[in-house]
Amino acid sequence: MLSRVIEALAPRRTVQAHCDIPCGVYDPQQARIEAESCYKIIQKYHESDDDVFRKRCIHVKEERAELAKHHIDVMWHDYFKPEHLEKFPDLHEVCWKAAKQASQVKRTVDLDAAQKLLDLIDRIDHMWRETNGPASTRMQQLEPVGANKATQ
Amino acid sequence: MLSRVIEALAPRRTVQAHCDIPCGVYDPQQARIEAESCYKIIQKYHESDDDVFRKRCIHVKEERAELAKHHIDVMWHDYFKPEHLEKFPDLHEVCWKAAKQASQVKRTVDLDAAQKLLDLIDRIDHMWRETNGPASTRMQQLEPVGANKATQ
Amino acid sequence: MLSRVIEALAPRRTVQAHCDIPCGVYDPQQARIEAESCYKIIQKYHESDDDVFRKRCIHVKEERAELAKHHIDVMWHDYFKPEHLEKFPDLHEVCWKAAKQASQVKRTVDLDAAQKLLDLIDRIDHMWRETNGPASTRMQQLEPVGANKATQ
Amino acid sequence: MLSRVIEALAPRRTVQAHCDIPCGVYDPQQARIEAESCYKIIQKYHESDDDVFRKRCIHVKEERAELAKHHIDVMWHDYFKPEHLEKFPDLHEVCWKAAKQASQVKRTVDLDAAQKLLDLIDRIDHMWRETNGPASTRMQQLEPVGANKATQ
Amino acid sequence: MLSRVIEALAPRRTVQAHCDIPCGVYDPQQARIEAESCYKIIQKYHESDDDVFRKRCIHVKEERAELAKHHIDVMWHDYFKPEHLEKFPDLHEVCWKAAKQASQVKRTVDLDAAQKLLDLIDRIDHMWRETNGPASTRMQQLEPVGANKATQ
Amino acid sequence: MLSRVIEALAPRRTVQAHCDIPCGVYDPQQARIEAESCYKIIQKYHESDDDVFRKRCIHVKEERAELAKHHIDVMWHDYFKPEHLEKFPDLHEVCWKAAKQASQVKRTVDLDAAQKLLDLIDRIDHMWRETNGPASTRMQQLEPVGANKATQ
Repeated sequence: MLSRVIEALAPRRTVQAHCDIPCGVYDPQQARIEAESCYKIIQKYHESDDDVFRKRCIHVKEERAELAKHHIDVMWHDYFKPEHLEKFPDLHEVCWKAAKQASQVKRTVDLDAAQKLLDLIDRIDHMWRETNGPASTRMQQLEPVGANKATQ
Repeated sequence: MLSRVIEALAPRRTVQAHCDIPCGVYDPQQARIEAESCYKIIQKYHESDDDVFRKRCIHVKEERAELAKHHIDVMWHDYFKPEHLEKFPDLHEVCWKAAKQASQVKRTVDLDAAQKLLDLIDRIDHMWRETNGPASTRMQQLEPVGANKATQ
Repeated sequence: MLSRVIEALAPRRTVQAHCDIPCGVYDPQQARIEAESCYKIIQKYHESDDDVFRKRCIHVKEERAELAKHHIDVMWHDYFKPEHLEKFPDLHEVCWKAAKQASQVKRTVDLDAAQKLLDLIDRIDHMWRETNGPASTRMQQLEPVGANKATQ
Repeated sequence: MLSRVIEALAPRRTVQAHCDIPCGVYDPQQARIEAESCYKIIQKYHESDDDVFRKRCIHVKEERAELAKHHIDVMWHDYFKPEHLEKFPDLHEVCWKAAKQASQVKRTVDLDAAQKLLDLIDRIDHMWRETNGPASTRMQQLEPVGANKATQ
Repeated sequence: MLSRVIEALAPRRTVQAHCDIPCGVYDPQQARIEAESCYKIIQKYHESDDDVFRKRCIHVKEERAELAKHHIDVMWHDYFKPEHLEKFPDLHEVCWKAAKQASQVKRTVDLDAAQKLLDLIDRIDHMWRETNGPASTRMQQLEPVGANKATQ
Repeated sequence: MLSRVIEALAPRRTVQAHCDIPCGVYDPQQARIEAESCYKIIQKYHESDDDVFRKRCIHVKEERAELAKHHIDVMWHDYFKPEHLEKFPDLHEVCWKAAKQASQVKRTVDLDAAQKLLDLIDRIDHMWRETNGPASTRMQQLEPVGANKATQ
């Protein structure tokens, strides 16, 4: 109910301008969910000594990282607009590093590489939140548990 | 930081049992984001009188609804296990209706059909939350803004 | 020629109600063909001692099982309707087990797991046949060789 | 049960030689099911005067015809081998025409075009049956109802 | 023959560093071919007064533009490296505009929009050529006819 | 600029007849780029002794070879027309062998197999060039460096 009220109050014109249909729905969670998969797969890879299982980890992780990369690209070229670049001059750099890190996660079974990808996606998430992303692009508003609400 | 602590405390064995790799990461948000796209596309369809735009809405909505359907299927057969069915005897019925509603959203430009899909996904989300889904399947915990935290 | 006659006599209204376009064409063979691939791949995996070949088996099987799973989902939420559930109260259970078994086939090189998937798909095939599936959803009618025609 | 006996008797070496894994499972039904979808969609297109429905028919038919085309290609380059070409010197011609007809079905709402595609796929099916396709590539044997078994 | 000699002389270490496998093969032609499709589809859209044909143009163009966008992303995050950014400080800006222009081409039947996409891809092609892209990433070297070879 | 002039002079009616939209854009480079990836992946496979890297090579090569195969199919059934078959009576044979060779490249880590695929794609490229392919299907004309222009 509340989400529909928030949705109704969201600035419509802004939404119109930055998506392909334009449908206006974006959420860095799409990238984060795939990146968490990579993290967990690497974790399980190291916990296992089953050869078939470990082989599967390598190629399933590759698919998940490719999806993370795709969702990072969508944020970069579909959600973010020139005015966001003014506010966050390192916007290109952060997205570029995140996409390159997703490539790195394909190549490795190093858990730190997966954590670094999560951290870079969280920086995209931060820019999305600071540019009114949640209210202008999602119907349902979600917040990380434990986040300092005052700063959101 | 907090999310990693919660993650570390999550019951590992349970996670192992219900996914394909098993990677153990699930979130009904994946279905909801696609369903919100359908909702917004239908809304914009009715606001527009541009013929090319309206044609695009029809086929882009079809793709988004197919993705919503896929993510509903993943929750149904990958996340939910027999013990969840015991707790929620209408589990099959809710997932079946949600998938069928996604098909309905492909066929129509009726906004109520899209809202009904969102409501059914929220019922899946509720079952996921009540079966410890957030803590056992996500590294980052999110909560709908305005939700009654006591009941989560 | 015969198939077109049968097709012409098929109950049209029923077909209209249960697919996405609605196109009304379904066949559990789509799932079975992919599941047979999984079975044969596992068989060849064990017959071979070539390391590259065996690695390929693991990831190609994973793709085939994913397709089997998709086709099982399509039968479940697109072909089957409430009246079929009345006739077969274990409809949800059989489809759920079949989809979960497809996941299991991804994870293992156990031939029995692949046979179990085939058996579950055959149960879906049985329900499809008993609910007039062949005549109402296919233009060409096919029958397993050696099947007791009186019971079809 | 019977299908497993037939499977066990099938010539293994032949199967080994003509697929990518090699898994050895092929069936022209995969192409036919998609082509039947195209036929039914065109039929329903003409029966309807709903504008949204007719738009959906155009793009969903395009996807189905693409899948039919893909499965025709698979029969052509994966199932058929040089010895089959000796037996059926028009093998290339039939497959080429079938693939081109699938393209034609994308472009038109002419029901005869869809029937012509079905007929060409049935010619591929005939060559598959005459080259021992069912017994050597499928575990379960199926036969068109009303087909003259003596000639199979 | 010549292409293999050139290939043999190409700097191997550089190639190693910038792709996902790393396979090291990149070519902006992949984006350009899809963008040319968009251009031609728009051209044919305006030349035709057939309603079914024009509907097909809208959704097929959408797919082609999505592929162009994907190949632009691949150049941006997989081919280009920090040292290329030093040489071309507007690297991010050009790729961002190209990806956004591909989105624009989905939305419109304006031929100038498609030409603008081609021009932006040609700027990416220029940066690829100026950073030794052809010799370091392709085995076969190709050159636009009529291009001033001295400047390549 | 030159490419647009050449494009304007290209025979339009021919282009109309041989593609799915019809968009009329084809280029064997799409197949060649993927086949070069396979070649380089195999090369790097042998240069490496890292187990995770070698596993990744196997499945990434499989995807690249599948794409090469798809692009070969597109040339065969979408670009080539009956009059081309008259000019090149071995058209079917060359395309068939190329597609089968792509399957072979999936199965092996033999560099010669990848080179043979490149050679077969170059024969398709030759037929495309000799049937006025570049001028009639591409807006931008490219030529292999070192090719004897008089014979193109």
